[in-house]
Amino acid sequence: MAGASIFPSRRLRPTPFTERVSQSGVSGFTVYNHMLLPTVFSSLEDDYHHLKTYAQIWDVSVERQVQLEGPDAHKLAMMMSARDLSAAEPGRCYYAPVTDRNGGMLNDPVVLCVAPDKFWFSIADSDLLFWAAGLAEGMGLNVEVTEPDVSPLAIQGPMAEDLLVKVFGEEIRSIRFFRFKWFEFKGVKMAIARSGWSKQGGFEIYLPDTKLGTALWDAIAAEGEPFNLRAGCPNLIERIEGGLFSFGNDMTRAETPLEMGLEKYCSLDSDHNYIGKEALLRQRDAGLTRKIKGLVMDGEKVSPLSIPWQIEESGKNIGFVTSAAYSPDWDKNIAFAMLNVDFAEAGQVLTVHSTIGTHKATVCDIPFEK
Amino acid sequence: MAGASIFPSRRLRPTPFTERVSQSGVSGFTVYNHMLLPTVFSSLEDDYHHLKTYAQIWDVSVERQVQLEGPDAHKLAMMMSARDLSAAEPGRCYYAPVTDRNGGMLNDPVVLCVAPDKFWFSIADSDLLFWAAGLAEGMGLNVEVTEPDVSPLAIQGPMAEDLLVKVFGEEIRSIRFFRFKWFEFKGVKMAIARSGWSKQGGFEIYLPDTKLGTALWDAIAAEGEPFNLRAGCPNLIERIEGGLFSFGNDMTRAETPLEMGLEKYCSLDSDHNYIGKEALLRQRDAGLTRKIKGLVMDGEKVSPLSIPWQIEESGKNIGFVTSAAYSPDWDKNIAFAMLNVDFAEAGQVLTVHSTIGTHKATVCDIPFEK
Repeated sequence: MAGASIFPSRRLRPTPFTERVSQSGVSGFTVYNHMLLPTVFSSLEDDYHHLKTYAQIWDVSVERQVQLEGPDAHKLAMMMSARDLSAAEPGRCYYAPVTDRNGGMLNDPVVLCVAPDKFWFSIADSDLLFWAAGLAEGMGLNVEVTEPDVSPLAIQGPMAEDLLVKVFGEEIRSIRFFRFKWFEFKGVKMAIARSGWSKQGGFEIYLPDTKLGTALWDAIAAEGEPFNLRAGCPNLIERIEGGLFSFGNDMTRAETPLEMGLEKYCSLDSDHNYIGKEALLRQRDAGLTRKIKGLVMDGEKVSPLSIPWQIEESGKNIGFVTSAAYSPDWDKNIAFAMLNVDFAEAGQVLTVHSTIGTHKATVCDIPFEK
Repeated sequence: MAGASIFPSRRLRPTPFTERVSQSGVSGFTVYNHMLLPTVFSSLEDDYHHLKTYAQIWDVSVERQVQLEGPDAHKLAMMMSARDLSAAEPGRCYYAPVTDRNGGMLNDPVVLCVAPDKFWFSIADSDLLFWAAGLAEGMGLNVEVTEPDVSPLAIQGPMAEDLLVKVFGEEIRSIRFFRFKWFEFKGVKMAIARSGWSKQGGFEIYLPDTKLGTALWDAIAAEGEPFNLRAGCPNLIERIEGGLFSFGNDMTRAETPLEMGLEKYCSLDSDHNYIGKEALLRQRDAGLTRKIKGLVMDGEKVSPLSIPWQIEESGKNIGFVTSAAYSPDWDKNIAFAMLNVDFAEAGQVLTVHSTIGTHKATVCDIPFEK
């Protein structure tokens, strides 16, 4: 399908920053939560080097907020989250797998506790709002489930903090990792969290008013020059290097958080009850039959995949690659793969069939070691 | 964002027919239910003329099936459907708005009654599975909610019937509108319905096995020459001419079926209870404040929109255009618009601000009269 372009449609929603993104030379897109998400500006490798050195401004409005608000908001949030949110505090963010009754993953949001009776599930690519609304309806809960006009704008990269200090003041430095504070911009309060979908450090600004999008972008861009600020986006190479999984790519409803190595985000031995817990406990007791691991693959530089690459050992299919990229800094092909546990020990050598040929691949732990 | 291409990702899933679609010269795409959907092959106008004259083969795998199966499947289907499904019979299809507690539309599937305890909701672009699974979980229903390996392949156009008779036999002619029958292909049973997202007539084949996709496509293509068969896709111009609404474009969770003129598909005066019914009854009693209507717009030929065009009357905003196209056969710009009811009578003249300028527009009923 190379070369085919995206057909205009209201169904693929613009964001508060679309105009500025458009003007910034975006060259590749994906669609995520019914919105356009940039994937490449200059080139995948050039964007990657820049992200690891300077500061980038990312339109991540696609991280829509599923807002639970009302007397039963906390109860519903708890039922939906494998992470124990019983002691959730305003101003904190929680990475929280959401599972169905079989333990299958429905999304892996970052949950923001906005107030004791108000939560934002900042979502990956699935309509988690429908799950929340269906549960609320089915259980007769007193909670409003909505998608508010809130669009995250991320500033990422090693120079992100110094840049945001120029715009919002020294208070920015006091925000701890996965915490947020409220800042005012043109008279409107917005949450700023130390978070974001890279391992280069940075912040996410939760813009609560589409009309202010261009002004916010411009206010940051105006201070950007000393930090070599450029428009950017989540980068495939950098996120694989950093061990960041993508819902829909590395995990789907067919995978459980345990298979994804996310057990530290799942409350298994506490009193916390949530949908999917029993299935996860059963799976833990029975033992995993497969799990996600890293791979280092030899051969030519690989390109991004669109169909999982099959993995073989002694003529038998024992897993598949979910994401892959060539890392320029490490001069290696790196990948995530879902593997039969019998072949998932670090050091195991396997054969991967990619679109460009056959590769010898060595299993390793995630995150990768350089 | 013109010119930007779609970045490869497993998250944008291939279909059983992707290889053949790729080879057929597709030039435009959209993303729909996390899958690629072709939008243009030769050109929008050329595809349109061809569809209205010959037969086309469409990969509409994006119409995913939300399968409800089990003792409570019928109960859950009834709760989700504004259309009364109490007398649903195997072999029939039902167009059914799905609404939330406020009457807001969540999807507008075609529901296939596969068996008394098995329903397929053949969905528009939203994760309706999450709504169904959330309701089932919240109510403790005994029903499995899954997305089976079922991918519709549509044959559309005035020559569709004669073509399918060549492949599946004379029995094809006996399928009535919005009914389906079971046919065998390579030993596998598949439902074929007289349905599809055009007004040119045709069928949808529910392929139940990805592995047979290429063989099914090829078997139909092999008989295609007398019918000038080409690969095609839902056509923006033709579907507006025909009065077919698109979920996400013409209606969202912010609209109710009554505002969309879909009251004939909503059970309002019977005993049938479903989520959203009370809200719809309240809205009917209070009277609508806005509704969808057709527009005929003067001026230059319009291009597809990506942001709703605002509509004005005496300096006041009174609505917005949701979809628009230039119709070559009618030599007119035609559009759907959500209008304040005070300005929604046929014959009303309004001003539309499109991306190419200002248009005088005349309100008309849907479907359009040529």
